[in-house]
Amino acid sequence: MKIISGGVCAAKGFTANGVHCGIRKNKEKRDLSLIFSEVKANAAAVYTTNLVKGAPLLVTKRHIADGIAQAVICNSGNANTCNANGVEIAEQMSDIAAKQLGISPDDIVVASTGVIGQPLDIEPIADGIVSLADGLGDFSDYAAEGIMTTDTVKKDIAVSFEIGGFECKIGGIAKGSGMIHPNMATMLVFITTDCAISSEMLQKALSTDIKNTFNMVSVDGDTSTNDMVTVLANGMAGNKEITCDGDDFDTFMQALNTVTVYLCKAIAGDGEGATKMLECTVDGAKDELTAKTVAKAVICSSLTKAAMFGADANWGRVLCSIGYSGADVDVNKVDVSFISVKGEILVCKNGAGVDFSEELAKEILLERDITISINLNSGDGKAVAWGCDLTYDYVKINGDYRT
Amino acid sequence: MKIISGGVCAAKGFTANGVHCGIRKNKEKRDLSLIFSEVKANAAAVYTTNLVKGAPLLVTKRHIADGIAQAVICNSGNANTCNANGVEIAEQMSDIAAKQLGISPDDIVVASTGVIGQPLDIEPIADGIVSLADGLGDFSDYAAEGIMTTDTVKKDIAVSFEIGGFECKIGGIAKGSGMIHPNMATMLVFITTDCAISSEMLQKALSTDIKNTFNMVSVDGDTSTNDMVTVLANGMAGNKEITCDGDDFDTFMQALNTVTVYLCKAIAGDGEGATKMLECTVDGAKDELTAKTVAKAVICSSLTKAAMFGADANWGRVLCSIGYSGADVDVNKVDVSFISVKGEILVCKNGAGVDFSEELAKEILLERDITISINLNSGDGKAVAWGCDLTYDYVKINGDYRT
Repeated sequence: MKIISGGVCAAKGFTANGVHCGIRKNKEKRDLSLIFSEVKANAAAVYTTNLVKGAPLLVTKRHIADGIAQAVICNSGNANTCNANGVEIAEQMSDIAAKQLGISPDDIVVASTGVIGQPLDIEPIADGIVSLADGLGDFSDYAAEGIMTTDTVKKDIAVSFEIGGFECKIGGIAKGSGMIHPNMATMLVFITTDCAISSEMLQKALSTDIKNTFNMVSVDGDTSTNDMVTVLANGMAGNKEITCDGDDFDTFMQALNTVTVYLCKAIAGDGEGATKMLECTVDGAKDELTAKTVAKAVICSSLTKAAMFGADANWGRVLCSIGYSGADVDVNKVDVSFISVKGEILVCKNGAGVDFSEELAKEILLERDITISINLNSGDGKAVAWGCDLTYDYVKINGDYRT
Repeated sequence: MKIISGGVCAAKGFTANGVHCGIRKNKEKRDLSLIFSEVKANAAAVYTTNLVKGAPLLVTKRHIADGIAQAVICNSGNANTCNANGVEIAEQMSDIAAKQLGISPDDIVVASTGVIGQPLDIEPIADGIVSLADGLGDFSDYAAEGIMTTDTVKKDIAVSFEIGGFECKIGGIAKGSGMIHPNMATMLVFITTDCAISSEMLQKALSTDIKNTFNMVSVDGDTSTNDMVTVLANGMAGNKEITCDGDDFDTFMQALNTVTVYLCKAIAGDGEGATKMLECTVDGAKDELTAKTVAKAVICSSLTKAAMFGADANWGRVLCSIGYSGADVDVNKVDVSFISVKGEILVCKNGAGVDFSEELAKEILLERDITISINLNSGDGKAVAWGCDLTYDYVKINGDYRT
């Protein structure tokens, strides 16, 4: 497997584009994105578990019920959620895009992200879609930018892998930033691949993968209304279609996982206001569920997040969050270490503090990527969760998001 | 029922004091508190549900297993939690206080609050306890200050009420600020009353009351390791002892509730970095549990809290948090209003936005005490939760708490 460039355009037959159509006031910022497959693709998706669901999710769900899609249209700047005419607008977005692309509206994945509860005007989208479609090309970057909200960096990745002697590619773009929490699908992620795989196996791969990837990312504990992850697989790599479990499916899963883990870390590290990417690894749990529960509690703890922002080795907060996680843990067996490129330092052994160098701890915690490593010493269960620190800027960004 | 002054010293037979003994570096800040009843009192307590429990909790639990206590000793600046010798130190605190007061160590409630995982030195406590006991008097204020951590204001209240022609009094002090979340007992709260009530009924009153009071307060979603609420009832008011349900018990419950609700709001409004006290009222739920689940989700939402800090009427975040709360709610029936002394404004009707004056909304939300009023329009269940906004100062306080 090899990391390659190209994002959602890396796989054969996929083009993309992103433009500024006018939903956002800032003309410098693209706000409408399109991803297109030159042939129909098998499609799979997962959605937020929030009872309040963005209108585009309802429309997308209906469109890909047959396991087929050919394009993705997504705007940022407005979530098209909690609006009386939301479904109507999402259908119009699909219709306009389909007409421009010469495909069926039923093969369109439609998504929106931004402020909840403000009517979404179709005019700028209708106007922008012509240049958006006309300009389709190897522009994964533009598409990645068009779906960004408070994201500060574009998030994309692609890898190549081999199945039955055929080179396959898979790539994705994501937008994250705020309102991100594990108890659901995830943020917005669009993945494309030229690997031939049936809709059923594609859905199985995605549904299995997200349990250990996007469902283990938290920025702020708020589960969004508009999250979705979709994968389009157009089969143009030429491999024999994957229709069941086996080595080929495992290879595909591994490639998919490389893409999703990368995007998870990118989303976590670019959480609203974040200055650090936090990874929490849990080992020695009595089972995987226990490990996941602990990892999520630590990564979600406001106090732990604030301590990491201050590069403060306040391991008591880590232990505290393990204690209230609800997981069945013997707190007297817990070890905690902090790890970064600067080294590793044990700060808690058997649930109690150990002498450690505050200087080294500081040096380790001043890095951007920090691992909080926990061993529960009670079994073989393990899990990883990703998050970010809690900073002044998180508050600043969210204190007045709408204006 | 009447609000009176005196805090924990309002009830007959109770004295208190607080001194600076040296656990904290800042000599201006009292860090050791004592509450004393001249006769043995019936006692009840509730504790944090965190699996990681401060050593003082374990010792207190043992001491009041017989339902009797006569004094409370509490230090701030160090939680005495996750220390190998924690129980030993908590026992020493009890022994020293008991000796000084001439009572049994088994009648001492011992508590600590502050940093987790740093050894607590008994020396300053041993030194301070003499002047602490010698100076016992009508000093509820000093005791309230001695238990404060990052609290910015003292929290105390007392009320008088009548049972069977006898005037009874009940009062309390609390410390809150950070690491406060509903899933457990609560912060530190010490309540005293001269009402005669059996240990069993006292425990019943407390355990019932906290479900709708301290368990409905959240500052940051982190459940502390050291939380406890204790009530000491010394019976000196002279009323016939309450030993069963009935009017007298109801009157006592009402008085207790007046004290606890006041302290809840005080804790919420003085949450770390808070500029606002947020109250979330939920009506029209299909049952009480649903109402509580919704109220807690809204009050815990980082995004809603940040929006309130910015006085931004971003009701979409309120709806979003209702949606992910896990409660069984028809999101298309939800109404949301914001209320303060400046008025009331409906911002969401039947799950969708309504036209409203942004100017009036701003004016309402710029106040210090804000109510987020939610009607689920699906039944008679109701609940109230309290919290605070999320501010720069929360991050500042917690970015480097240990130093």
